[in-house]
Amino acid sequence: MSKTSQQKISEMVEGLLGSYEEHPIICNIDSENQINRDVILEILDMLRWLIYPGYFEMRKLKSSSIEYHVGEILESVRYNLTKQVMKALYHDSKYQTEDADEAYAQAECIVTRFLYKLPKVREVLATDVQAAYDGDPAAFNTDEVIFSYPGVYAVSVNRIAHELYQMGVPLIPRMMTEHAHGLTGIDIHPGATIGEYFFIDHGTGVVVGETTTIGKNVKLYQGVTLGALSTRGGQGLRGMKRHPTIQDNVTVYSGASILGGETVIGEGAVIGSNAFVTASVPPHTRVSIKNPELQFKDRSRTAELGQEGFFNRKERD
Amino acid sequence: MSKTSQQKISEMVEGLLGSYEEHPIICNIDSENQINRDVILEILDMLRWLIYPGYFEMRKLKSSSIEYHVGEILESVRYNLTKQVMKALYHDSKYQTEDADEAYAQAECIVTRFLYKLPKVREVLATDVQAAYDGDPAAFNTDEVIFSYPGVYAVSVNRIAHELYQMGVPLIPRMMTEHAHGLTGIDIHPGATIGEYFFIDHGTGVVVGETTTIGKNVKLYQGVTLGALSTRGGQGLRGMKRHPTIQDNVTVYSGASILGGETVIGEGAVIGSNAFVTASVPPHTRVSIKNPELQFKDRSRTAELGQEGFFNRKERD
Amino acid sequence: MSKTSQQKISEMVEGLLGSYEEHPIICNIDSENQINRDVILEILDMLRWLIYPGYFEMRKLKSSSIEYHVGEILESVRYNLTKQVMKALYHDSKYQTEDADEAYAQAECIVTRFLYKLPKVREVLATDVQAAYDGDPAAFNTDEVIFSYPGVYAVSVNRIAHELYQMGVPLIPRMMTEHAHGLTGIDIHPGATIGEYFFIDHGTGVVVGETTTIGKNVKLYQGVTLGALSTRGGQGLRGMKRHPTIQDNVTVYSGASILGGETVIGEGAVIGSNAFVTASVPPHTRVSIKNPELQFKDRSRTAELGQEGFFNRKERD
Repeated sequence: MSKTSQQKISEMVEGLLGSYEEHPIICNIDSENQINRDVILEILDMLRWLIYPGYFEMRKLKSSSIEYHVGEILESVRYNLTKQVMKALYHDSKYQTEDADEAYAQAECIVTRFLYKLPKVREVLATDVQAAYDGDPAAFNTDEVIFSYPGVYAVSVNRIAHELYQMGVPLIPRMMTEHAHGLTGIDIHPGATIGEYFFIDHGTGVVVGETTTIGKNVKLYQGVTLGALSTRGGQGLRGMKRHPTIQDNVTVYSGASILGGETVIGEGAVIGSNAFVTASVPPHTRVSIKNPELQFKDRSRTAELGQEGFFNRKERD
Repeated sequence: MSKTSQQKISEMVEGLLGSYEEHPIICNIDSENQINRDVILEILDMLRWLIYPGYFEMRKLKSSSIEYHVGEILESVRYNLTKQVMKALYHDSKYQTEDADEAYAQAECIVTRFLYKLPKVREVLATDVQAAYDGDPAAFNTDEVIFSYPGVYAVSVNRIAHELYQMGVPLIPRMMTEHAHGLTGIDIHPGATIGEYFFIDHGTGVVVGETTTIGKNVKLYQGVTLGALSTRGGQGLRGMKRHPTIQDNVTVYSGASILGGETVIGEGAVIGSNAFVTASVPPHTRVSIKNPELQFKDRSRTAELGQEGFFNRKERD
Repeated sequence: MSKTSQQKISEMVEGLLGSYEEHPIICNIDSENQINRDVILEILDMLRWLIYPGYFEMRKLKSSSIEYHVGEILESVRYNLTKQVMKALYHDSKYQTEDADEAYAQAECIVTRFLYKLPKVREVLATDVQAAYDGDPAAFNTDEVIFSYPGVYAVSVNRIAHELYQMGVPLIPRMMTEHAHGLTGIDIHPGATIGEYFFIDHGTGVVVGETTTIGKNVKLYQGVTLGALSTRGGQGLRGMKRHPTIQDNVTVYSGASILGGETVIGEGAVIGSNAFVTASVPPHTRVSIKNPELQFKDRSRTAELGQEGFFNRKERD
């Protein structure tokens, strides 16, 4: 006799409940303080509003009412972010405490310091927008840069997340930067330290590691990695300087990789496309690869389009 | 006499209706069974809830009520997924039948088998989360990995979609993985077979083709392609093994390409950044490219920043 | 005596208002004509509906009511797009005028011309869908291509945005293509001119610059850049042909870069993976790089997995 639908569902539920017990590593039941990712993303939108007022709303933003709007949004960010930071501190076993009031007080203190820093964050982002406009002949005006440029969005999120990261907030900064990574293809760890007038053009595939330091007026193109030489040490490497230092006025062209915590790219250096750099470069140096020689072959009498021909492999069909 | 607005709209409508008849290939009018992409994405969210309970919700999930919640969500997945799978089977001309009951019965059978497999899927995903934490010094804890890591999201979706793909469900698995591709930049075809403890770090630009086989404890970095040597055979190549086999304990560093259905990367091999591999590699082998020699040029007395200098091209301005 | 919460909020508001005055470049208060990004994205969805009728909706679309639906959506696109284009024209200082009626009339004219072109846009997109299906052995059918392929989505948005770009609409075309860039990792500037039967496979990391010209039946793979040789001229280069010309029947494999406004890739040429091309290529030519020689090293007696070994660096731990 075959099972009824209800019996099957019961068995499935039982199977999953058993699995929850067996694999607690991916199970968060009865967790006291659950960070809410959707709330974090709303906070990020409100912070963008505060930083770029008037760009992302339905109606004209008037100077006569701006003070009221700013106050209201600040208040909302403060309330919601404090709650989430408290949960993140609780969530992090290092801070776990029985005293909810103490955790809340600490979160309040962090969020206050953070909000006082917003004008400073804006000041630096204004330089980033200017750098994007100056550096890209396709940019129509600075408004287009703010509306549309993924590099500007990614660095805006990074500068916000970096402040929280530096104040020791767990989990939340990375949620923010991974959200930006998802939207832009630009993966900047919140730990990375970045100077003013920073511009990433196109951006898809860019990776900037946790302990990277970047000076002023630096420009990166799509597919650039500022990474670790190795992560095989895994968690044993936590906290070590694993990623490079990029000094002022450096340009890194598309697809280049610069790896290693001891690697310093000196002031004013230019790293060419696809270069693979694992040692320091002196200031004012152009580093380029001798591009792999191109081979040309006349294919006018053949019909094939495949890539096999490049490797002298036998044809497949 | 100029046309009225209404006349113009009428002409535009007429133009489009004519175009619908002329190009039916991108027209789906009167199609009996329309898969709904939004419903598929809701189902994906519910499956994520079942797999990672307590991570993605507003309130604390309590063990006292967990059974009730799991039952409710399972029921909803079953109902909605069955309807969509039925439509997908109808949609696929190979299964088209006049008998809606038969198609529904087949969909019910597939979805039941699929849901019974969820604990097995969870078991493997628990190993993936562990591998991500172990392999990345920047990972704060396993919760951060689950909340934020694009590689974990992409492989979660792949493991779900792969089950449906193996049961012969058309269209839906690819909708799922392309959604993950959009969010993460990681393009894993639902046909790819992947062993446990799989980790993709950063991930943007990763491509894993339909007939790829990956062993246990494999780690990929951003920009890695596990691809076909050629697709010039187009639809004539359908079903053939076109993508490589990666054995256990292999690491593939950023930007490397491994191509071809006969290519086997042996157990414990390590493939270096940007390597371009089109033939098999023995076990326990390090494959690296002799990196293109770097050329250094002092530019301290020049002001230019352009890339032309690298190629000895005349300056443009 | 410590400050009250209200005092702190007041200080924060004051700080931000001061910052708004100090950095007007990222401030849009009192701006008369504010383009709304959300409305632009809704318009894009409606245009997708008109181009691919029946694919992206909840219910079956019936031929008996199609005329009514098309008329309604066209009307909505016309109304909303006209308003946004008017704002974009105002927003652009070159067009700024006291006469709102004049700006509106100009916007109306542009949008009407644009909507009359939709059947033409559909005609070309039908060829793109066909090319995607023909070119990819993993494609199940053309519906899957329309539902799921990021390359098809990106080129659909590009063909829409390109029409508006050519009619001189500021800001809006780029908002559209950057939205597609975010969803797909494919960055096609709305200025790029692209022939029929165009296919981008996988697509993450593709960059196609503003002044690129692409012929018919061209195929690009993931990570391909059709870019400028240098942008160091910044805004001084605006309007110049900075990006390459790709003639008919060209295939460009993954990771290749083709740079420069004078670079012409001749008809029927094939550019191999990772090639870096900065000069013209004759028709019917295969260009490949002599792939960097692979080096093999037996690591069976060592336990390390790191990348350092490739560069003879001392181990770190």
